[in-house]
Amino acid sequence: MEEIREECGVFGIFDLDSSLDVARMTRFALYGLQHRGQESCGIAVGSGNSILSHRDTGLVAEVFNESILESLKGRQAIGHVRYSGAGRRGNAQPLVVNYRDGMIAIAHNGNLVNYKSLREELAGEGGTFIAGSDTELILQFLCRQLVKLPPDEAVARMMSQIRGSYAAVALLPNALIGFRDPYGIRPLCLGKMNNAYLLSSESCVFDILGAEFVRDVAPGEIIIIDKNGLCSLQAFHEEKTALCVFEFVYFARPDSYIDGVSVHKARMQAGRQLAQEYPVEADLVIGAPDSALSAAKGYSRESGIPYGHGLIRNRYVGRTFIQPTQEMRDAAVRLKFSALSAEIAGKRLVMVDDSIVRGTTTRLIVQMLKRAGAKEVHLRISSPPVKHPCFYGIDTATSAQLVASRLSQKEIREMIGADSLGYLSHKGLLQIPQNINCGLCDACFTGNYIVPPEQ
Amino acid sequence: MEEIREECGVFGIFDLDSSLDVARMTRFALYGLQHRGQESCGIAVGSGNSILSHRDTGLVAEVFNESILESLKGRQAIGHVRYSGAGRRGNAQPLVVNYRDGMIAIAHNGNLVNYKSLREELAGEGGTFIAGSDTELILQFLCRQLVKLPPDEAVARMMSQIRGSYAAVALLPNALIGFRDPYGIRPLCLGKMNNAYLLSSESCVFDILGAEFVRDVAPGEIIIIDKNGLCSLQAFHEEKTALCVFEFVYFARPDSYIDGVSVHKARMQAGRQLAQEYPVEADLVIGAPDSALSAAKGYSRESGIPYGHGLIRNRYVGRTFIQPTQEMRDAAVRLKFSALSAEIAGKRLVMVDDSIVRGTTTRLIVQMLKRAGAKEVHLRISSPPVKHPCFYGIDTATSAQLVASRLSQKEIREMIGADSLGYLSHKGLLQIPQNINCGLCDACFTGNYIVPPEQ
Amino acid sequence: MEEIREECGVFGIFDLDSSLDVARMTRFALYGLQHRGQESCGIAVGSGNSILSHRDTGLVAEVFNESILESLKGRQAIGHVRYSGAGRRGNAQPLVVNYRDGMIAIAHNGNLVNYKSLREELAGEGGTFIAGSDTELILQFLCRQLVKLPPDEAVARMMSQIRGSYAAVALLPNALIGFRDPYGIRPLCLGKMNNAYLLSSESCVFDILGAEFVRDVAPGEIIIIDKNGLCSLQAFHEEKTALCVFEFVYFARPDSYIDGVSVHKARMQAGRQLAQEYPVEADLVIGAPDSALSAAKGYSRESGIPYGHGLIRNRYVGRTFIQPTQEMRDAAVRLKFSALSAEIAGKRLVMVDDSIVRGTTTRLIVQMLKRAGAKEVHLRISSPPVKHPCFYGIDTATSAQLVASRLSQKEIREMIGADSLGYLSHKGLLQIPQNINCGLCDACFTGNYIVPPEQ
Amino acid sequence: MEEIREECGVFGIFDLDSSLDVARMTRFALYGLQHRGQESCGIAVGSGNSILSHRDTGLVAEVFNESILESLKGRQAIGHVRYSGAGRRGNAQPLVVNYRDGMIAIAHNGNLVNYKSLREELAGEGGTFIAGSDTELILQFLCRQLVKLPPDEAVARMMSQIRGSYAAVALLPNALIGFRDPYGIRPLCLGKMNNAYLLSSESCVFDILGAEFVRDVAPGEIIIIDKNGLCSLQAFHEEKTALCVFEFVYFARPDSYIDGVSVHKARMQAGRQLAQEYPVEADLVIGAPDSALSAAKGYSRESGIPYGHGLIRNRYVGRTFIQPTQEMRDAAVRLKFSALSAEIAGKRLVMVDDSIVRGTTTRLIVQMLKRAGAKEVHLRISSPPVKHPCFYGIDTATSAQLVASRLSQKEIREMIGADSLGYLSHKGLLQIPQNINCGLCDACFTGNYIVPPEQ
Repeated sequence: MEEIREECGVFGIFDLDSSLDVARMTRFALYGLQHRGQESCGIAVGSGNSILSHRDTGLVAEVFNESILESLKGRQAIGHVRYSGAGRRGNAQPLVVNYRDGMIAIAHNGNLVNYKSLREELAGEGGTFIAGSDTELILQFLCRQLVKLPPDEAVARMMSQIRGSYAAVALLPNALIGFRDPYGIRPLCLGKMNNAYLLSSESCVFDILGAEFVRDVAPGEIIIIDKNGLCSLQAFHEEKTALCVFEFVYFARPDSYIDGVSVHKARMQAGRQLAQEYPVEADLVIGAPDSALSAAKGYSRESGIPYGHGLIRNRYVGRTFIQPTQEMRDAAVRLKFSALSAEIAGKRLVMVDDSIVRGTTTRLIVQMLKRAGAKEVHLRISSPPVKHPCFYGIDTATSAQLVASRLSQKEIREMIGADSLGYLSHKGLLQIPQNINCGLCDACFTGNYIVPPEQ
Repeated sequence: MEEIREECGVFGIFDLDSSLDVARMTRFALYGLQHRGQESCGIAVGSGNSILSHRDTGLVAEVFNESILESLKGRQAIGHVRYSGAGRRGNAQPLVVNYRDGMIAIAHNGNLVNYKSLREELAGEGGTFIAGSDTELILQFLCRQLVKLPPDEAVARMMSQIRGSYAAVALLPNALIGFRDPYGIRPLCLGKMNNAYLLSSESCVFDILGAEFVRDVAPGEIIIIDKNGLCSLQAFHEEKTALCVFEFVYFARPDSYIDGVSVHKARMQAGRQLAQEYPVEADLVIGAPDSALSAAKGYSRESGIPYGHGLIRNRYVGRTFIQPTQEMRDAAVRLKFSALSAEIAGKRLVMVDDSIVRGTTTRLIVQMLKRAGAKEVHLRISSPPVKHPCFYGIDTATSAQLVASRLSQKEIREMIGADSLGYLSHKGLLQIPQNINCGLCDACFTGNYIVPPEQ
Repeated sequence: MEEIREECGVFGIFDLDSSLDVARMTRFALYGLQHRGQESCGIAVGSGNSILSHRDTGLVAEVFNESILESLKGRQAIGHVRYSGAGRRGNAQPLVVNYRDGMIAIAHNGNLVNYKSLREELAGEGGTFIAGSDTELILQFLCRQLVKLPPDEAVARMMSQIRGSYAAVALLPNALIGFRDPYGIRPLCLGKMNNAYLLSSESCVFDILGAEFVRDVAPGEIIIIDKNGLCSLQAFHEEKTALCVFEFVYFARPDSYIDGVSVHKARMQAGRQLAQEYPVEADLVIGAPDSALSAAKGYSRESGIPYGHGLIRNRYVGRTFIQPTQEMRDAAVRLKFSALSAEIAGKRLVMVDDSIVRGTTTRLIVQMLKRAGAKEVHLRISSPPVKHPCFYGIDTATSAQLVASRLSQKEIREMIGADSLGYLSHKGLLQIPQNINCGLCDACFTGNYIVPPEQ
Repeated sequence: MEEIREECGVFGIFDLDSSLDVARMTRFALYGLQHRGQESCGIAVGSGNSILSHRDTGLVAEVFNESILESLKGRQAIGHVRYSGAGRRGNAQPLVVNYRDGMIAIAHNGNLVNYKSLREELAGEGGTFIAGSDTELILQFLCRQLVKLPPDEAVARMMSQIRGSYAAVALLPNALIGFRDPYGIRPLCLGKMNNAYLLSSESCVFDILGAEFVRDVAPGEIIIIDKNGLCSLQAFHEEKTALCVFEFVYFARPDSYIDGVSVHKARMQAGRQLAQEYPVEADLVIGAPDSALSAAKGYSRESGIPYGHGLIRNRYVGRTFIQPTQEMRDAAVRLKFSALSAEIAGKRLVMVDDSIVRGTTTRLIVQMLKRAGAKEVHLRISSPPVKHPCFYGIDTATSAQLVASRLSQKEIREMIGADSLGYLSHKGLLQIPQNINCGLCDACFTGNYIVPPEQ
């Protein structure tokens, strides 16, 4: 229930027939990716060497209206949703600049670990930066190659210079490019609709658009779509790959498939596994809305304890706002989540949540359930304790803020006020995305970073 | 899943201690009532004979920001959320005007059936109207009495002149007033928090604010709160009362209690009843989000068929927007609701919805479920067929648009493409809100109007 | 140079051919009347019983854009510019309301002196007011008559109830009405263009539009324009009439003609008269821009002293804004007016201004001229000392703020730092608008109020 | 009266005492420079290596409000006003970017003639551009030197790479820089106030701020102001300098002094010279407001023909807007300029204007004067015919649009409908700015370009 913040969702489309309204489709796609970033969003549309774009702070529904969409005509488009907190580098994407051959736009999900030395390299020569974000560095390194090499080789060369996580889409004057980092830390997949190719952070977007899911973009793969169709270059072949496991735990929509695995099924399986690892006698299983509902369903099915809605999420409450008094802060949590007393009063509850980061919201929710009449609240977490910061684009928290890096499981249970607490085991976690065609990054649980961060 | 539109939700607060931030609390309350109206909203704050107000088109989250809230200081406040479609009379509320003794504000949920003759009476004398809404007429009739009578008698006198449904709150220079029509068609309840009294369309608001639910305002009751505390005048005693049954079917939040009955329990009970009336052999029960989830749960428990999430509602999609092409219109439905294929593929589904108005969205959803792999879709509606228009403030549709007034149940099933279709019986419906301390208005199912409309 | 604030300028048009773009023409007209009010403006356009309108705070250039104008289509229109300071009743006009026969709009220049008793009469019956401005009272009294009498008689009857200054235009469902108070305190004139009739506060508007000036509307006259053409009713015949003499001194544009007299010529004549009454030996005559340029020219011609531009007005500086420090306040005056040192250095100046209200700006200007090198500054004022407040719509100041009601002419000269000071005599003033077909109100100089204010 | 468009006005301030409100002072300065650009404006404020900025389309009065000014705190600031028509490269300035040592901002007036090769040099290496304006190129070339050289040498080195006109100010992390191109085509001057140094396109700004004019920045001079005070580097010593003569003819404010010459006196002198070259028998001399008033005064004094105001400029009409019909277009000119018939009727007029570019507006004005009763209109232009485009930042028009490059003087007179037409001779023009300490660029009259444009 706590807001774990990921940097972005990306989308791209190139319509060889020039018959689709690519801006409107991109807006639909961004609605479908909105859960990946609610702070700002943008769309860039291209045709030839000119690119039109619009981006702003706010939700897709706030940023785009009919007259803006009407003004964005073209054959290819990219879009972006992002979270960008205070102190973060950068602004709404796509980032659009001019270079030798016209305009170029990029939208990126991920985080570079060699940001500092990349920036120093450019700055040392007198380079200038709009904001100096990771995305801008990628773009500047890319343009330096594009004036020397064909697009696919230019991207490959640029990818050999940057290190970290990235799933990105870019509009070149006459092409759409997509590329995924060599370890595949962030997801990216390919779709098709009529004579158009689509790239998206998640496959759920294709269902919304009525497009066909083709396949995942492979770690280290570069996709170039132009008027001649699609080309792929497998630029890197790392032995070990490492898709962020938090996509299954929390980020992705349940109706998405990532690297061959249904997010919903993975979560159901996590819930089942959790029921085996941490059984409890209870009357009702409830899930923290909306991310833990699948896991709760799995726990219910495995345990045989009935599943119910004990918590309702107010869908009109968006980004959390700062409240001036404690009274207001408590009301803000009650505003977002309501306990359904008619359902839970007098019952022993299993409450399934996906993770505990700081623990403060969880404590308020447990209190709320008890005030609404729950006799017992058994907390079950469908992932292991988060103990390590993420360097690949997830804004969990610093180590000091992570409750699991400070407190023992017993202390956490006491702090939260639950009657019992069980985390999914690490072993259990890794078994969950069955038959996945990619390795998993579990650094936030283990501290094993596949791409070591700079000092 | 279709949008049935109700006119409004209202809220009021009078803090005898002047220690609460009544504007901020009203904003929280409006978030909690947002499901009752998403087109416009407003807050009026008073203290002495001056009233400050802000209202606009948009969601609560869009209309109010910190600096606006900072500017709204006072001891008492009222708030309003509303739906106001094209061609509807009126604008965002609260309506604020000046009269003899200072400023006065009103917010109203409901609809007058003698609107025409009331307006003619005032207009015939040369009266002027800002917009000529029901609410403005109530206010003008009220002010005509307030210059002659004390507030409670003035309201009672005004109530004897108007006919229809209304649950309203008003700010007088030194008082907060609430009143509910003699039949209690629209709900209104009373809460308390520290030394403040609260009035709200629904009780869920009190939970959000951390306030205590005191009781429902009775049909025909007038509540006056001023510095001396609360006074009540039971101005009308109709033998028959008639709370809108659609509050239980669709409008109200499941965590609200209305006239003594839990909305969630009433819906669960409707689902159970439906399972008895229309059983079917199936693998999974799913509910149309979010209004039919409780009923679906009831169906599942009664029938023993497992409950699951087959449809996901995108919570970032707000008001539906007009799409230029059929392709876009279809995408817009897929954007709002996603079928979870991993959950439903290969299964025989019972899909529970609360009502069918026009039937077009329902048909698209059934198609979506089948495309996602559902083997069968058995549609169960937790209320009887809606055949008659509502004159008390619910914008269902004209008779001609109501599918159930044109087609037989069989024809509806074919149009929608469901494998079977079952509506809750009228008898079943009336048994649902058990131990309710009020009668029910079921005119939309039966055509029996407790307050006959003007010709 | 000080800002004397008048309430308004009004304009109306009724095009019998329905061929003109009346909204665009009204916008042009408001640009031409903008000097009469810079705080807010609005346009209402009608056709049948519906009226579309737009009004807001700001200059005409800020309030109206193309898409707003596009949305304002009709056969008749009225417009309004106004100044509305803090503490003033009311908002942007035209005021638009609904009454028995449809919508009605009104725009008004002037001030009622029996406002209080008029309001009490309506409020005592329980009447409600949007803002309770003079204009709203006129409108409410008018509607009470319109439901009983034909338009011309209704206006006449309403005019017998209100007392004060007014030049107003109103849109009825099928007519445009104009009326001027029985004493003619505020100006109003009639124009024609193709088959359209126009009403305007000033004739300069007709030149802008390419329309023909027909005549002034007489004091106490009511003009009704509908599809049958123009009707006039001379409802009142006061023996004495009293056009505000400040129209000639300050308000009106020099290219306007009011009640038969050229504003420019009247000002030139004032300057000539002043040169006879207060001659001085000097090298250059300059005028305070822009209102005193004609008078300065007159002084120059009569005296033979060369005329020059010693002060430049920055035309990008609009409404004066509050400055936080004295340094900034001084800069704000220098921002608005610049002394042209190349023109005035080493010279003995006659500076002609139209009036002195508070005297503070005048003192700063005299300082500025001296700093820029002027050897002497002889101040000449083209009107007598303003000693009495205006009750007819001019916001000069309270008596206490009027420097001439506190200080002698000698003290004023010292305070201002001028080398000599001469005011136009009262006798001189009255001779200025030669051959005027109306009396003059000089209450601000004499205290003789033609319509006595209420206690 | 036609709008000749110049690119910009610039201003900078560095307060060694950190006691002035540099943002507010910059806003005042921009009001004083607003005549040099009305399309967009901006302010950047710095302190250490961080820069805060705000810029937008619109007038200074529209773009800056109190809360924006409150947010711009610092020790040094630069500001910019600009005209930027359709098809022009670039956006509102100051341009702010990040570079190695922090943030850097620049504001620039002028135009580079080797833009294309400069851009190609950067683009060929893969460089990226926000908009690719001249200003951005200057900034990128500057940053490349700043990482290698101290600021003054870095600017000098950059100036050796770029060619064209420029008067620019830049904020470095701890310094304010100003520099003027080697020929001094665009003006720049230095002021002082308390312990702060100021740079401005025009000296009138210092009068507004109460600052002291120190001297003009010399062509090719670089000024660096930091906590240690002011340093100057005379980086270039061209034998011939070439200040744009149009500054005296049209652009600059009459109260400014440029390179030692009063703009007002130069214009007066042009009018006198014109009266000698083209005398005529007439009754009244009038000037086109506001730019030709000084020249008209000069003509009047030399000829002895009385000076008067025959044309009034509406100061509420800002940027010209496109009108849909010819009727509206004519009204738009009448809206901007009004003929004062009371002054000119029956008279033979000399109308002095500063230049004729396209001739269309001039023709309408001559018509307007005749309709207002002028017996004759003798047009006198206080500069020679404009026959050549400007490559240094003035948007006169293309050669084809310049009426003087297509038509003979006689044809122009006929087209415009004047009774006679006289242009100031080229020889006369060059004598006007007496004792100027700089050469003059007269390329628009002669085609002699001091910095040859690229092919």
